[in-house]
Amino acid sequence: MGYLPRDLLMNQGFVRRSCQALRQIASELASAPPLLVGVATPNPSEMGRPLFNSAVLLKNGEVGPAFHKTLLPTYDVFDEDRYFEPAVGPQILELNGWRLGISICEDVWNDRDFWQRRRYHQDPIEMLAESGAQAIVNLSSSPFIVGKQILRERMLSHMAQKYSLPVAYVNQVGGNDDLIFDGRSCVFDREGRLVARAKGFREDTLIVDLGMGDQARSSGTVAEDDFETEAEIWHALVLGVRDYVSKTRFSKVLLGLSGGIDSALTAAIAAEAVGPENVLGVLMPSRYSSGGSVDDSVELARNLGIHTLTLPISDIMQTYDGVLADAFRGRAADVTEENIQSRIRGNLLMALSNKFGALLLTTGNKSEISVGYCTLYGDMNGGLAVIADLPKMMVYRVSRWRNRAKADIPEAILTKAPSAELRPDQRDQDSLPPYDLLDQILELHIEQCQSAEDIIASGYDQDTVRRVLRLVRMAEFKRKQAAPVLKVTSRAFGTGWRMPIVRQE
Amino acid sequence: MGYLPRDLLMNQGFVRRSCQALRQIASELASAPPLLVGVATPNPSEMGRPLFNSAVLLKNGEVGPAFHKTLLPTYDVFDEDRYFEPAVGPQILELNGWRLGISICEDVWNDRDFWQRRRYHQDPIEMLAESGAQAIVNLSSSPFIVGKQILRERMLSHMAQKYSLPVAYVNQVGGNDDLIFDGRSCVFDREGRLVARAKGFREDTLIVDLGMGDQARSSGTVAEDDFETEAEIWHALVLGVRDYVSKTRFSKVLLGLSGGIDSALTAAIAAEAVGPENVLGVLMPSRYSSGGSVDDSVELARNLGIHTLTLPISDIMQTYDGVLADAFRGRAADVTEENIQSRIRGNLLMALSNKFGALLLTTGNKSEISVGYCTLYGDMNGGLAVIADLPKMMVYRVSRWRNRAKADIPEAILTKAPSAELRPDQRDQDSLPPYDLLDQILELHIEQCQSAEDIIASGYDQDTVRRVLRLVRMAEFKRKQAAPVLKVTSRAFGTGWRMPIVRQE
Repeated sequence: MGYLPRDLLMNQGFVRRSCQALRQIASELASAPPLLVGVATPNPSEMGRPLFNSAVLLKNGEVGPAFHKTLLPTYDVFDEDRYFEPAVGPQILELNGWRLGISICEDVWNDRDFWQRRRYHQDPIEMLAESGAQAIVNLSSSPFIVGKQILRERMLSHMAQKYSLPVAYVNQVGGNDDLIFDGRSCVFDREGRLVARAKGFREDTLIVDLGMGDQARSSGTVAEDDFETEAEIWHALVLGVRDYVSKTRFSKVLLGLSGGIDSALTAAIAAEAVGPENVLGVLMPSRYSSGGSVDDSVELARNLGIHTLTLPISDIMQTYDGVLADAFRGRAADVTEENIQSRIRGNLLMALSNKFGALLLTTGNKSEISVGYCTLYGDMNGGLAVIADLPKMMVYRVSRWRNRAKADIPEAILTKAPSAELRPDQRDQDSLPPYDLLDQILELHIEQCQSAEDIIASGYDQDTVRRVLRLVRMAEFKRKQAAPVLKVTSRAFGTGWRMPIVRQE
Repeated sequence: MGYLPRDLLMNQGFVRRSCQALRQIASELASAPPLLVGVATPNPSEMGRPLFNSAVLLKNGEVGPAFHKTLLPTYDVFDEDRYFEPAVGPQILELNGWRLGISICEDVWNDRDFWQRRRYHQDPIEMLAESGAQAIVNLSSSPFIVGKQILRERMLSHMAQKYSLPVAYVNQVGGNDDLIFDGRSCVFDREGRLVARAKGFREDTLIVDLGMGDQARSSGTVAEDDFETEAEIWHALVLGVRDYVSKTRFSKVLLGLSGGIDSALTAAIAAEAVGPENVLGVLMPSRYSSGGSVDDSVELARNLGIHTLTLPISDIMQTYDGVLADAFRGRAADVTEENIQSRIRGNLLMALSNKFGALLLTTGNKSEISVGYCTLYGDMNGGLAVIADLPKMMVYRVSRWRNRAKADIPEAILTKAPSAELRPDQRDQDSLPPYDLLDQILELHIEQCQSAEDIIASGYDQDTVRRVLRLVRMAEFKRKQAAPVLKVTSRAFGTGWRMPIVRQE
């Protein structure tokens, strides 16, 4: 039924139709082997939440028993307590002579030996083992985070060894709104050895023999994988863009090309995701744009093989200045005029998007969205924020990694000082701390939930820390109206970042 | 600590500082009567969620015991399972010879006799009564919804009677982001009679004698209140705007005046909330604006006593047309050109907001935001969406109610056919079903979670229903980037409406 279905689950018609779909699948697969399918099922009781999060058995054309999820994640992007009632007791499926312990996603993430702090009081895997399960099956929709697969495999291996049971972990693959599912389903034998792994970031089928009996060995194939940070991020974002574009029924995308690293990396990801022939890069030079910006963008576009269009904005800027002249008389130029430029560009990009039916991609990075170094209704315009969970320094790392395959991003873009080019000789570093320092402070605050005192106590300059955190607070109203952000870190802006705008501090 | 503090609760520094604030308050109030204060307190266990939602006793300068919340709402705008561990067992405070049953907000909302369907398995009030509580105290942050106070009072009266215990219900008052708290704290005696009620939508102090012993009578004062729908909505929105503006540290607001009913009502609310001298109405006529639109807006502004500024947009439109002429050659005019106009206005309003430091108010209503009859980055621009939880027909009702006090909204605005005036002779009803029909379908779908089949089964035209629900789905990407919406219904867009953009249907 897609994931996260979120408040679609509150629509009874939606739940009804997914039950109908189950019956249809069961009937079409009547002669296929038994199949477990994840779906929401109604809670028949008059007490508690209205649904269970279930794995339903399809067998011989029938919709069989449902096995419910016990641990309901309600943190980060997850809201399962909003919809679901937990299972009571172990969920055991007797099938073809096996006693299979059925678990769903979060159910495997609460082992008392593996975690220092546990979120839940129950451990459904322990219950399954105590109930005589001969293997653990886990149906997962576990969103991608950099480095998460290594953690998953360590945890699942530990679990297999601890209970001396084979563990089959089946994970969703594909993009859905801001979340990217990396697949990489994997199976461990009762000694905790990895015996099979599906490909990452694409659909794949694994056939695994778990091996019946104490002496039997599990067997399967282990797909090669690349756990390098930059590689993981690249593949995740390509999949995220591809699926968002196709699932929202677009085939073409466009973006503004500023001559900077952010739009360059976004263009490279887009070209890989939907094909360069479906990408339009728009150059919108103003009187403050350097010649280099235009030339570098043209070279980038040529290297990637994407289309370009150039729309100078000076005439429009002058007309706005004229219309506002009386109202602004006697007042100095300030950030207002910079924002007008950015919003003219945003309006032109949306006009092209509307006229040509192409999805506008936003190019902002996590550092600038954190501190509000971006214009609401201007460069923040777009249907999807592709790299908005990458801190600026990571934008450079992924860009350099991408250039190893083919140096499509011109060296000048990789080496020039970042600039918004909204006033003469502007440089990001005139307004912000150096990006390597900024990114460290932001990670401590955003991903590790540290407050100013905590960060200062680790040795960072007090004034810098307080200034950065103040900027983060002040930019909340902008993020509240931002496009969905493809998530690759443990805490991305969007559904996993829920901050009030009104606050005293 | 403000409500909802949301993910501020994940910041340990925030929790630490609120505990410091508690100690300071305790010390400042050392000679005052004992006081119960709502605050988050750390969960000392290594298992479970990190915090409790607590009422802490301040007495004789000391920070006393904490009483925890049992039922943790995780629906609509609430996410308490994200942060809090539930209390275990009844929370009884022995104070000055009383055994007080302490409960927090949701704890009173799960009575088995009052509700047909219960969300929770426990009833903390029943536990308190069984533990010998002599009165029930409830600390609430219960957000305003039209008609909710009548329900609260019925429920609390039932509870007082059922257990033969006085009930003191203390509710927050004020606006916080999208939520409005209406106050109206109230006290019921052991026979279920209302003996005291605080004022609505403003701070107030009640002194109530609950009466010790079986024969004693509770005594207090009952504030007059107005439960008429239009009156409740008006007072709620005025408070919501006033507090959002002051708590985000603005003193002035501005908005576009189109000559239509939405901007007229928004202007009237703003004038009441922050004073007419702090409101700027901006007229931005185009070649498609009727003369009436300008005249009606001028008359409205004069009646309300707000400032106006006129910025014609035709020159800017022409410059955009020129810049885009080559790119758009051979293509017919469509919604693109309408959106450009709306975005020019949005850019001008934001320029004024930036230059003058005034908060931009959005004027869209719930009907148009539901079906996407609005322009992202255009008329959707603004920091707060004042009437975006009012269906169009309710906008008229509240406007007419407002005019009973003084007919500030010109009759022409109340009677003309709604139009976006983005092309010649445009009328909303050329694109949408009649508003009275549209609003009924939207209420069934949005507030009552009915699907197309359900609504059609109640007798609505099949094609109209399917078309409206399709428009609602298609507009999800716009709502994802909308300003916070002041909530007055049981389901407003924003934190209580969590829909995926990517969906198959």
